[in-house]
Amino acid sequence: MSAEIRRLLRFVDADGRLRPGLLLDFDPAAEGPVDPSWRVQPCQGDLFGELRPVGPPVALGSLRLLSPVLPGKVVGIGSNYRDHAAEMGRALPTEPKLFLKPSTAVIGPGDAIPVPPGTERVDHEAELAVVIGRTAVRVREDEALDYVLGYSCLNDVTARDFQKKDGVFARAKGFDGFCPLGPWIVQGLDPRSLGVRCRVNGQLRQDGNSADLVFGVAQLVAFVSGVMTLQPGDVIATGTPMGVGPLVAGDRVEVWVEGIGCLANPVIDREDRQRG
Amino acid sequence: MSAEIRRLLRFVDADGRLRPGLLLDFDPAAEGPVDPSWRVQPCQGDLFGELRPVGPPVALGSLRLLSPVLPGKVVGIGSNYRDHAAEMGRALPTEPKLFLKPSTAVIGPGDAIPVPPGTERVDHEAELAVVIGRTAVRVREDEALDYVLGYSCLNDVTARDFQKKDGVFARAKGFDGFCPLGPWIVQGLDPRSLGVRCRVNGQLRQDGNSADLVFGVAQLVAFVSGVMTLQPGDVIATGTPMGVGPLVAGDRVEVWVEGIGCLANPVIDREDRQRG
Repeated sequence: MSAEIRRLLRFVDADGRLRPGLLLDFDPAAEGPVDPSWRVQPCQGDLFGELRPVGPPVALGSLRLLSPVLPGKVVGIGSNYRDHAAEMGRALPTEPKLFLKPSTAVIGPGDAIPVPPGTERVDHEAELAVVIGRTAVRVREDEALDYVLGYSCLNDVTARDFQKKDGVFARAKGFDGFCPLGPWIVQGLDPRSLGVRCRVNGQLRQDGNSADLVFGVAQLVAFVSGVMTLQPGDVIATGTPMGVGPLVAGDRVEVWVEGIGCLANPVIDREDRQRG
Repeated sequence: MSAEIRRLLRFVDADGRLRPGLLLDFDPAAEGPVDPSWRVQPCQGDLFGELRPVGPPVALGSLRLLSPVLPGKVVGIGSNYRDHAAEMGRALPTEPKLFLKPSTAVIGPGDAIPVPPGTERVDHEAELAVVIGRTAVRVREDEALDYVLGYSCLNDVTARDFQKKDGVFARAKGFDGFCPLGPWIVQGLDPRSLGVRCRVNGQLRQDGNSADLVFGVAQLVAFVSGVMTLQPGDVIATGTPMGVGPLVAGDRVEVWVEGIGCLANPVIDREDRQRG
């Protein structure tokens, strides 16, 4: 792809307003946390339309980032890497297997992932996220990428014990905070061969590449849009490679995707205070 | 419950604007299609806040109704009637089994349910729908009904072959048009013992009662809100009784819930036109 690379983000300004911005600096070699000295150009406008720079650049570290979009829906794809399907003891799918995460599960970079009481196994799942840019209804594979705004990192946090117990996935994958997304959306990236990694407390846990997706990005956009209308801001979580493993309170989990950067989130225990 | 019964609806006015309204007439004995001579009081305001009557009542039959809300999410409950769990060969759940339908599946009364190509078995599932009125986070069962705006009819249309093939439910239950909702939201109704029926072309197919729910409405609101934040307009589809069966193009399917009325939708074949 020859498109210009742009990194789109959302932050809360000093007056508490949501603002879009453009990341001006980036180091493709850095796999760790984002550099707080990287500059952000605050903007006015709409991530899906035109962005107009407003004022001088500011340091990334001075901003509170939000998830770059609040999706209407997050469509997950089950068993979409050969090695992960094998580690879960699942057959390789012949068609994409769709599940949904609710928008209420979405959190931004740096936000805490709460481990709810009652679950004994909450796993990280590092994924390449596809952010839809315009309404897609039954689009063809060869035009599918025209409907993509860009790409981001996503952690498809999953209560593995509930997933196995329920059979259905919505509880296991739907808790508030179980869908970290960010830190920004990258435009102009070719999604066909991107490293996808997960580190927990600095230790490498997952190390895959989108080249090993059973169903690639264009196939997924075409398939999903043949089932349900995809709207601007909707997200497809493309699946996770081998190496899923547990998170516990006190951990720091990082999802890194090549060319996008690092989405880092702390893990905490959810405090269910007595009420009434 | 001693609360006043109100029936809230949404329609498109002559200028193409979405408007709320109140249904003024109702016949609890009628199980068939709604009576087009029933009067509607057009309103200004918000279904979740205050409604102010504007202008004279108009005939229901002169209005194009929409689904009474556009939910952010629709949370479905699997195997929540003993008789339906038995007919599907499933064990009775010990906790509610959650799945999600996307908001893009929601259609209103009278809208067509499109049968997509590739599926050989699309089933009706008549359900009592719970519409959330205010944000609910980990609410107790004894306060759960305070978070409910009201009740409606919902058809959890399901491509049974895809559900069995995929294991996960999002494709089977997520097609555009697979979530008829309406015709209105009823406030002041006691949800604990309501008849739930489905007719196809006038023939009775399902005949259940919410008294037979494995997990009742208050339990469901409490349980789901302990997983994911419920927001105003979100819907819980409480599950379907025995008798699910196929729909084909040309059918007319009616979901009737006692005290709410009849949600009727025609079934058509989805036309996937050649494009490009």
